[in-house]
Amino acid sequence: MTTADASDSTPSSKVPRTERGRRTLRKLLDAAAIEFGERGFHEASITGITRRAGTALGSFYTYFDSKDEIFRALVDDLSGKVREAAKNALQSELPALETERAAFAGFLHFAREHKEIYRIIDECEFVDPQSFRQHYQTTANRIHERLTQGVKRGELREGLGEAHAWAIMGMNVFLGLRYAVWSDDASPEELADLANSILREGIARKPDGEA
Amino acid sequence: MTTADASDSTPSSKVPRTERGRRTLRKLLDAAAIEFGERGFHEASITGITRRAGTALGSFYTYFDSKDEIFRALVDDLSGKVREAAKNALQSELPALETERAAFAGFLHFAREHKEIYRIIDECEFVDPQSFRQHYQTTANRIHERLTQGVKRGELREGLGEAHAWAIMGMNVFLGLRYAVWSDDASPEELADLANSILREGIARKPDGEA
Repeated sequence: MTTADASDSTPSSKVPRTERGRRTLRKLLDAAAIEFGERGFHEASITGITRRAGTALGSFYTYFDSKDEIFRALVDDLSGKVREAAKNALQSELPALETERAAFAGFLHFAREHKEIYRIIDECEFVDPQSFRQHYQTTANRIHERLTQGVKRGELREGLGEAHAWAIMGMNVFLGLRYAVWSDDASPEELADLANSILREGIARKPDGEA
Repeated sequence: MTTADASDSTPSSKVPRTERGRRTLRKLLDAAAIEFGERGFHEASITGITRRAGTALGSFYTYFDSKDEIFRALVDDLSGKVREAAKNALQSELPALETERAAFAGFLHFAREHKEIYRIIDECEFVDPQSFRQHYQTTANRIHERLTQGVKRGELREGLGEAHAWAIMGMNVFLGLRYAVWSDDASPEELADLANSILREGIARKPDGEA
């Protein structure tokens, strides 16, 4: 539930012990997403976050020591939400390519509702490079695991590895940036179909007579 | 040759008129790439740039009014170099998929030698969002044009559009980040082969008996 659990930088004493505390922490993280998303890291302020959250300044310092610390916790929180959005879209028994389609469609729906995520993750490259790398490496590892399963089940071709996972992730991230964040030109399902058609058959023309 | 020619923000009076002036401008832009790449936009300074360039402070102000202005010119300059790196790798008569392979390999060689480019383009999202969009939109447009040619010649399948170009660009950018900037794990040729195999045939297993 709490981001703080997963964050090395947050001492365990700061994990909320009550339901009320968990709600306050949640409000602070949601407010931070808007504050950092709208103003960027350098312009964002702790009082801006607590004002948006409707909490006292003291509540902020119950959970975080600094703007840097809540930013790191937020990236970790968003990274977890991306994971959940993709996972919730999955059913365990889907074929490998359908799994990739569903995971990407789930991500696109999430990105449309949380357009600030791109800016926050991207700014993380400068504010906290380690979390930036970790977000993408973790995401690539999940895709890589799914590909490995698909190869084992004989649905995907042999020889797929980490680099194929990075290629798929890059395709998904850029399609999401262009068509879910910069505009709403295409529906998540259309985009997921398009990406899936590249994974299914590539972009070459089939020789005549082939299906 | 000069970035300034192509930059709306640089009045024409600032375009160098002599060979010596062009060399000075080139030195300033190369120094800016290192200064911004190493220190980031906020920490970078004009004196840091002129020190690295070995030029007087006055030379800087001959061509640029501010740190923002040389940053914008630098992004424009790097964007042009990426274009050149991809273009130089192309031969006019290559088949469509070979063209994509060669363009990507050219980009990877460039990125390995200019690792700072990712950081500078990425930071551009925050320093100058319009140039950031323009860099990617222009790159996608080039890929889209090549795809359209390939479809016309019957080498690529019907229905490829702008979104396919964004998907290919995303694949290339993320493979470059992971394997040309973060590490030197794989050669540009291996990576270009890998990306090309996705474009050629996707990742699905072929039914038995098919080549």
